[in-house]
Amino acid sequence: MNRRRFLAASALAGSAALAGGAEGAAPEGAGTTPPEVTRILAKYVVSAKPADLPEPVRKEAMRTLLNWFAATLGGAKNEAVGIAAAALAPFFGNAQAHVVGRTERPDMLNAALLNGMSSHILDYDDTHLKTVIHPAGPVVPAILALSEYLAGRSENRKFVAGRDFMNALVLGIEAECRIGNAVYPEHYDAGWHITGTVGPFGAAVAAGKILGLDEQQMVWALGIAAVQPVGLREMFGSMTKSFHPGRAAQNGLLAALLAQKNFTSSDQGIEAKSGWANVLSTKRNYAEITENLGKTYEISVNTYKPFACGIVMHPTIDGCIQLREQTHFTPDDVKSIDLRVNRLVLELTAIKAPKTGLEGKFSIYYAAAVAIVEGSGSELQFSDASVKNPVTVALREKVTATADSSVAEDQVRITITLKDGRKLEKFVEHAVGSVKNPMSDHDLEVKFAALSDDVLSSDQAEDLMEMCWKLETLPDASQLAKNAAGKA
Amino acid sequence: MNRRRFLAASALAGSAALAGGAEGAAPEGAGTTPPEVTRILAKYVVSAKPADLPEPVRKEAMRTLLNWFAATLGGAKNEAVGIAAAALAPFFGNAQAHVVGRTERPDMLNAALLNGMSSHILDYDDTHLKTVIHPAGPVVPAILALSEYLAGRSENRKFVAGRDFMNALVLGIEAECRIGNAVYPEHYDAGWHITGTVGPFGAAVAAGKILGLDEQQMVWALGIAAVQPVGLREMFGSMTKSFHPGRAAQNGLLAALLAQKNFTSSDQGIEAKSGWANVLSTKRNYAEITENLGKTYEISVNTYKPFACGIVMHPTIDGCIQLREQTHFTPDDVKSIDLRVNRLVLELTAIKAPKTGLEGKFSIYYAAAVAIVEGSGSELQFSDASVKNPVTVALREKVTATADSSVAEDQVRITITLKDGRKLEKFVEHAVGSVKNPMSDHDLEVKFAALSDDVLSSDQAEDLMEMCWKLETLPDASQLAKNAAGKA
Repeated sequence: MNRRRFLAASALAGSAALAGGAEGAAPEGAGTTPPEVTRILAKYVVSAKPADLPEPVRKEAMRTLLNWFAATLGGAKNEAVGIAAAALAPFFGNAQAHVVGRTERPDMLNAALLNGMSSHILDYDDTHLKTVIHPAGPVVPAILALSEYLAGRSENRKFVAGRDFMNALVLGIEAECRIGNAVYPEHYDAGWHITGTVGPFGAAVAAGKILGLDEQQMVWALGIAAVQPVGLREMFGSMTKSFHPGRAAQNGLLAALLAQKNFTSSDQGIEAKSGWANVLSTKRNYAEITENLGKTYEISVNTYKPFACGIVMHPTIDGCIQLREQTHFTPDDVKSIDLRVNRLVLELTAIKAPKTGLEGKFSIYYAAAVAIVEGSGSELQFSDASVKNPVTVALREKVTATADSSVAEDQVRITITLKDGRKLEKFVEHAVGSVKNPMSDHDLEVKFAALSDDVLSSDQAEDLMEMCWKLETLPDASQLAKNAAGKA
Repeated sequence: MNRRRFLAASALAGSAALAGGAEGAAPEGAGTTPPEVTRILAKYVVSAKPADLPEPVRKEAMRTLLNWFAATLGGAKNEAVGIAAAALAPFFGNAQAHVVGRTERPDMLNAALLNGMSSHILDYDDTHLKTVIHPAGPVVPAILALSEYLAGRSENRKFVAGRDFMNALVLGIEAECRIGNAVYPEHYDAGWHITGTVGPFGAAVAAGKILGLDEQQMVWALGIAAVQPVGLREMFGSMTKSFHPGRAAQNGLLAALLAQKNFTSSDQGIEAKSGWANVLSTKRNYAEITENLGKTYEISVNTYKPFACGIVMHPTIDGCIQLREQTHFTPDDVKSIDLRVNRLVLELTAIKAPKTGLEGKFSIYYAAAVAIVEGSGSELQFSDASVKNPVTVALREKVTATADSSVAEDQVRITITLKDGRKLEKFVEHAVGSVKNPMSDHDLEVKFAALSDDVLSSDQAEDLMEMCWKLETLPDASQLAKNAAGKA
């Protein structure tokens, strides 16, 4: 037995903490002792009140919630979610929580898992562009199910007020995005799917806030969340990608439940030598977590996707839809379409002749054509049927794309030459949905309506949208989940 | 938006796999394309039959199972397990599976979690010394609960034969230990609690084998397991440490259930650029996973702890018990005890005057004294009461320990000088429980009896031990769990 193995083996004995630091090499970069990151974060979230939230933050929370419901309703009937629901059904506990857009009614923990999966399966959810975290994904499912569970208990029934729900949502997103900021981009570049690795922190904080954890319990909840990261980027393109935010929601909720009963963990789950940040990232900028708490809010820079595809294609779709709306022409009128794009567009979305909807998401040529033919870039436009539409196929063959170093990532320069010689031109400076040109409330409502169309009755959809906009005055947040359930 | 962020954001779109390798830097060391590690492993476990297992492997499987029950029965009433059971009880599904040594009867997934926790809470479980993985911890709970669920279903009832249970146990341990071999020690040194990070693979393989997954499904199960590592070494000394193998068992079982329904994941969950091994370790020796499958068995080098403390103290306890049994003397007869120990003993277990049972686990002086006074090193000897026993305290003060470079890690040289001038000497060449001096079957039975004493009736304990030794001919493995449940 060599020394290293023997040292490691010695750690078997209950509390290696007692044995001090003798048992292994310090991870790279763990030079100076960091501040009490976990405790500082816990102290803040435990004390933060709904009344502390500035008005723009409250507004963004409603927009985040509305967009989350839109994405989740759109994804609810996806095959992946159906498979997971069928696999888990034999193990469901009591009917405690609704599943958005579906008819199952499982226990709270399984509802959180399924709702988190639905929210991400279409890649149509919100994005914290600084870290590419999808902030609402792990957080909303945890507190949505928890609110319903607490309201439905026969003993100790508790109604979670909308403003407390909002506060928990904001704080959960704050925790996960700040932790993400501290390790991005190295953590993401290493191969972690960051939404699933920071998500447990977000869900634990949000659920812990609603459960009324004290500071020490919140510290433990963060520690229990720290040991449960979910998600590798290798899974992009498979059903397992959507599992990441779902399981993250469930893991964080479980962490809060255990901490509430004083299940102990480390006091330094985030910053310790063998804690989350040192083990999962080569970069650790703890100031991103501990500074300006209560002064800045990460939800303020949350964004919402107008189109159901990768962000690189958004400027082109945006510009083509604008040209379609500004000038009357038919696909048949078009002689050629010339796109001057950022070079990443060709690196990532250069499939010339996509055969499936999924391939369509990686074809800038198809994206331009379908935006002109159908005037949209929603999930419908990335269906197998749309990709095979002969009108769109014919138009797609007229599209050329050229990388142009003067074109920024959220820009495109479009020239459509018509057969009659006219040239239609459009320069998109900031694509819709970017931080500088956010989706309007109306845009979000249109997205919501489109994605909920198949799933909810129009009355139900209307009510749910209304509840999101009136979140602060909602007396019982469990109404949200009840209103979002699918028609039986 | 900088390039890296933008590239990352583009990965939002459904299948980044389609976009090829353009989207991020390759992780360190990912130079040559590895073989199809995940598929090779899946192909092997899917085709391996009970009849393929050599006799010594079958024997070791029984010993591993017996030891797992011993450790789990001993831990079942620990406070941490009680807290977790109470926190989770409101979310239990139908009564599908028993909990070892306890009276709850939750759904299969929650039973796996609780049993995995109990197995590890005393740090008295098995150890694969090459990697310090506790092999049975994540594997047995998954297939124990699964066997009971399948036997208890009203439709499609299925009895898992003991030999199939044994085969699944061996293969699950094979998968997790081989994956551990591929990344140890760098992966462990980085701060991961390896039992919880490789555990989901072990549980997924074992459960998947019992569910009869085909090769592709097994590949997916490994992929779904890959995204759910659990456990940081920072948690050593807190309740969360025991959560790691429990959650790992549950995660692997969940992975197998999803894969059974064709929930897709990557085909290269282990070896891909952004797969488990590249993301969680700087060392990847894939040959450890793919070579000699079906020829060597990692369970053959599994070991079982005779004493409820870190392995560094085992030679001393072993030698002191031997001297006590070989020569009649009382603690009061002793003038001094001199220990010549490997230097790691003093680095890790040098607490002079322990005040609690937990501190006692880190005091070589106490360990020598209590072994002489009580003739054992079980969990009882590391209770607060034993540590405070005045007879032991007085003897402990007569112990000195000196590091000696000629003493190997599993050795000790003990000299007891009696007041009448006699010197008792003992050189322990290989401590009991080491690979070279394994616990005998009888030792394991004594350990089992001691740990089950408080929890099972003696008839129940006798029956359970018998079932472990007759595992291969057991017609219905669900009998194991039923016999291990606590008295109501």
